[in-house]
Amino acid sequence: MPADNVEIVSYDKFSLSSSSSDEEYSSYRKVDSSDDEGIQFAVTGDPKDESNEVHFESLPRKDLHEAFLKKCVDVILKEAVFEGTKRQNKVTSFKSPEELRSLFNFELKDGASSHDKLLRVVRDTIAYSVKTGHPYFVNQLFSSLDPYGLVGQWLTDALNPSVYTFEVSPVFTLMEEEVLKEMRRIVGFQGGEGDGIFCPGGSMANGYAISCARHKFFPDAKTKGLHSLPRLVLFTSEDAHYSIKKLASFEGLGSDNVYLIKTDSRGKMDVKDLESQIERSLKEGAAPFMVSATSGTTVLGAFDPLNEIADLCQKHKLWLHVDAAWGGGALMSQKHRHLLSGIERADSVTWNPHKLLTAPQQCSTLLLKHKGLLAQAHGTGAGYLFQKDKFYDTKYDTGDKHIQCGRRADVLKFWFMWKAKGTNGLVQHVEKVFENAAHFIQLIRDREGFELVHPTPECTNICFWYIPKSLRNAKSEKDYGERLHKIAPAMKEKMMKEGTMMVTYQSQKGLPNFFRIVFQNSALNKSDMVHLVEEFERLGSDL
Amino acid sequence: MPADNVEIVSYDKFSLSSSSSDEEYSSYRKVDSSDDEGIQFAVTGDPKDESNEVHFESLPRKDLHEAFLKKCVDVILKEAVFEGTKRQNKVTSFKSPEELRSLFNFELKDGASSHDKLLRVVRDTIAYSVKTGHPYFVNQLFSSLDPYGLVGQWLTDALNPSVYTFEVSPVFTLMEEEVLKEMRRIVGFQGGEGDGIFCPGGSMANGYAISCARHKFFPDAKTKGLHSLPRLVLFTSEDAHYSIKKLASFEGLGSDNVYLIKTDSRGKMDVKDLESQIERSLKEGAAPFMVSATSGTTVLGAFDPLNEIADLCQKHKLWLHVDAAWGGGALMSQKHRHLLSGIERADSVTWNPHKLLTAPQQCSTLLLKHKGLLAQAHGTGAGYLFQKDKFYDTKYDTGDKHIQCGRRADVLKFWFMWKAKGTNGLVQHVEKVFENAAHFIQLIRDREGFELVHPTPECTNICFWYIPKSLRNAKSEKDYGERLHKIAPAMKEKMMKEGTMMVTYQSQKGLPNFFRIVFQNSALNKSDMVHLVEEFERLGSDL
Repeated sequence: MPADNVEIVSYDKFSLSSSSSDEEYSSYRKVDSSDDEGIQFAVTGDPKDESNEVHFESLPRKDLHEAFLKKCVDVILKEAVFEGTKRQNKVTSFKSPEELRSLFNFELKDGASSHDKLLRVVRDTIAYSVKTGHPYFVNQLFSSLDPYGLVGQWLTDALNPSVYTFEVSPVFTLMEEEVLKEMRRIVGFQGGEGDGIFCPGGSMANGYAISCARHKFFPDAKTKGLHSLPRLVLFTSEDAHYSIKKLASFEGLGSDNVYLIKTDSRGKMDVKDLESQIERSLKEGAAPFMVSATSGTTVLGAFDPLNEIADLCQKHKLWLHVDAAWGGGALMSQKHRHLLSGIERADSVTWNPHKLLTAPQQCSTLLLKHKGLLAQAHGTGAGYLFQKDKFYDTKYDTGDKHIQCGRRADVLKFWFMWKAKGTNGLVQHVEKVFENAAHFIQLIRDREGFELVHPTPECTNICFWYIPKSLRNAKSEKDYGERLHKIAPAMKEKMMKEGTMMVTYQSQKGLPNFFRIVFQNSALNKSDMVHLVEEFERLGSDL
Repeated sequence: MPADNVEIVSYDKFSLSSSSSDEEYSSYRKVDSSDDEGIQFAVTGDPKDESNEVHFESLPRKDLHEAFLKKCVDVILKEAVFEGTKRQNKVTSFKSPEELRSLFNFELKDGASSHDKLLRVVRDTIAYSVKTGHPYFVNQLFSSLDPYGLVGQWLTDALNPSVYTFEVSPVFTLMEEEVLKEMRRIVGFQGGEGDGIFCPGGSMANGYAISCARHKFFPDAKTKGLHSLPRLVLFTSEDAHYSIKKLASFEGLGSDNVYLIKTDSRGKMDVKDLESQIERSLKEGAAPFMVSATSGTTVLGAFDPLNEIADLCQKHKLWLHVDAAWGGGALMSQKHRHLLSGIERADSVTWNPHKLLTAPQQCSTLLLKHKGLLAQAHGTGAGYLFQKDKFYDTKYDTGDKHIQCGRRADVLKFWFMWKAKGTNGLVQHVEKVFENAAHFIQLIRDREGFELVHPTPECTNICFWYIPKSLRNAKSEKDYGERLHKIAPAMKEKMMKEGTMMVTYQSQKGLPNFFRIVFQNSALNKSDMVHLVEEFERLGSDL
């Protein structure tokens, strides 16, 4: 490789290295540091750069890092956390990729940057990023910025753990145990017993469920692979999250072997169709092994009928997985948990606290009724990490259950939120969010220009069309659907460019593009619902 | 499910809910908040709790969150970041799981906790966690706490993004593009061209490599699955990371179909054995498709001979993956990059900046020479997220390349470090760490009581036995190996209980347990090397 591709040139005096910086942190040492040949710590400010109040260059080296860290924290708290979540400010300042490249200096260079320049980078990163904690970021199945969650994240970062062995992550290991057990109790697994893991996202949690189900029925797959097995088939609804197909491909099952079950107009799995698809697979000589039901579908927010599905799974000896990544939060509330009635019969459950419960990104769990299966399915017993001759009980070395090795601790932020608010606080949060959604539905149900995709959405994502004046009397015209299809993208463009709110849209089942607004931030209230409705009217006024 | 399993009881006055807290954040609203029926924000301190200087309860509600957040940051900076990385302090205060449960209140309750109690939780979490940023945490392939990396993490947390579409993560999307391109240039891919992703850990990156290789040669696997394909075989060395087998199982290939290639005494793949195993697989009628070579093995730190392996891959038309999760950092330095000579011939490379380059947990990349393959192998084109009728160029919606959907942004922390130090700073960091390792080797090479597993380790992980006095003249005795095998676990127990350093041990290839010390923190210097050597002598003195 030619050297000029590498861009490694000789040391220059502007260099700022982690070496010396860590040195600063650890300036009190037991050992003699007289032969310390550490790299020179040199920060040079651009003398022309007067944008900041603190002139780091004038500080003694020893205080430099502390001052820089504290200044960064001040800026982050002020501009991202507080200003970023104020209703009067924008959700986003949209720039096209080309514009953004001209405004923000992404380039990595040989030389170091001064602390003043770095502070500007922090500010620019905030300025050009979407404020996902803003009350009017109602675009995805996650939103809001929980203060306790944030403390949990920041503490996790400062401790920088990897959760695989008890010796390296004692606190995080026991916290995971506590949270997962409590979540299993809430799901309804007897006494909270079973197993579970934190995963990097709900897609991965669904992937683990597939892998556990496969291992339960075909344990040889782990060593022999799938090529000599019959064709394995699993079932999920046509409205289920795309991760089921994606992970089925990744895990060698093939997306064609995910049989998609019809849904009704509300988006619920059609149990009769499920039964006939199971029978079809048996007739084909395939081996059906799993149903993945959904509690809270991604677009329509539908809850599959779990008890009926569980009956079929029992009859046909199939693994029942419930993807409650989105809807799982409703389990916290006695008012709403009926939506997931039957979930306690599941073999496994995906539940993402970073969705309805607003834990920071990312916090996803897979909960299992079966003890030991995760380790059996995924364990390899690597001797360098999971030594059996340790001096403590190595059942606490939980890493081998995972397909990750090093793993970020996603538990503290959620545990800390839970500790802060109590279960009661989480219940109130969920109920408030459902109340807001009900109010939004009530507001648009009979309002001119709004049309619900389904009249009674079950979860806090609400799908609807906004029909501008020009189309309100055109319903019978041939190209009505085609014209309506273009409205949401046009309004979204305007919305993004003005930055006043963010709501996503999509087409589904051949319907014209419709909006999906999502509520999971309990800081919103009834006046916000009115504001959001009026904002749609404003954005659609000239279409 | 019986209600008493859920532990949801009625609202009590101690409740602290995210609802109101977000409300506080967003107290300036465009819309009228007079009908705001937000949940009462009530923080009640325990009057007996006088452990903290700030009495949050006496503050007006509006300032309460800001004061709490700032106080938490102060505690985290002081106790975790600064005190936690001082040489004079302990790396760990080990408690057994039972002891820890009695000292730390993990339990989640119905009621909320006061801010004073929460601050104590923050302090306890720090006190009982391992200080992975401490200079004497030399236990894993990650360590140290980079100040710029930390700022990057904290900023990421405050913005709480999910990197799947440009509209939601504009800055993070372009940052990923920049960092991945620069890393590909350093690997030696022509002009930095190709593709790449950030993954939740090196294991996952290796899994993606398997999946891409499989898709390249057997694209039907994505839809049809593996059951109708020939038996696919891949090759890696017996010293390679366990994730290759683990992910091969997960992806339906079966761990038996990972053929393990012999290594020499240094831990390098035996290319002759590779050739004969490829031939064996062909004779068996299997379909070999991939070799995973390692640059920097987990235990011995060996670098496989990439050019010779690349020649074989070329000859047999096999995908060449290089797992440089650990050793990749050496590419930064002209002095050390010869260790990975030939890596530019790879089809894919795993490289974890959170290892040798000390980015915070976690930061792992998969770099590919082939454009578009990631999306072809993993894309499902979910219409609700990756709409094609958006108003900007949707090639920037990169999420469909991944098997994750929601995805934490792991790029900013590393990009920010790179920006701060420049490429030069990273080069110096790597060279310093290699110098330290060389010095450590020099110190123990001829020192009584130390024996290197291999006389000339190539990377900055160094494997050795400490032989206590009682065993120094017992080498010819029958039970010598057995006795030596017990030394490292005994010393590790003492080390953990005293908390003065953390170094791991393991057995490998039937050898008695040996220590593996790992250097990647460039804040360490030659005096630290002396200190660490003497610490082994101290810990082993009475054995």
